[in-house]
Amino acid sequence: MQSNDLLGMLAGTLTTVSFVPQVIKTWKSRSAKDISYGMFTLFSLGVLLWLAYGLTIQSTPIVVSNLVTLILALGIILMKAWFK
Amino acid sequence: MQSNDLLGMLAGTLTTVSFVPQVIKTWKSRSAKDISYGMFTLFSLGVLLWLAYGLTIQSTPIVVSNLVTLILALGIILMKAWFK
Repeated sequence: MQSNDLLGMLAGTLTTVSFVPQVIKTWKSRSAKDISYGMFTLFSLGVLLWLAYGLTIQSTPIVVSNLVTLILALGIILMKAWFK
Repeated sequence: MQSNDLLGMLAGTLTTVSFVPQVIKTWKSRSAKDISYGMFTLFSLGVLLWLAYGLTIQSTPIVVSNLVTLILALGIILMKAWFK
């Protein structure tokens, strides 16, 4: 593996894992009023396109990281709707 | 340009632009207590690595989109600290 690939994988892991503390915080606080629907909707749509991009170029890291990110981001949107 | 590239650029534009409504919402409401520091810190660190990755592979779209995202994400962190 090239050092470039390692850097990209580390970057992808961080940006994906970053959604976990938000999911935990929102779940515990039962509050998401300060979170923007616009942000998470546009972001999820973008992540869905990254997923499609990963499938077309057959890149497993892009597919896996964006699939996990999509699930976490949609989870935040659902919690925001639920806890309102 | 390949259709793959177009898909990737569209995906990158959406995930970057998605931070704008959050910045506007936080700025207007002067409140960011429901936003996780953990998420935005890990995310910014990941975006910084994506930026480094973009520089090493000399990809302008990756560099530009991650530079803009980094500025927006850091802006949200600063506003959260400021409005507390």
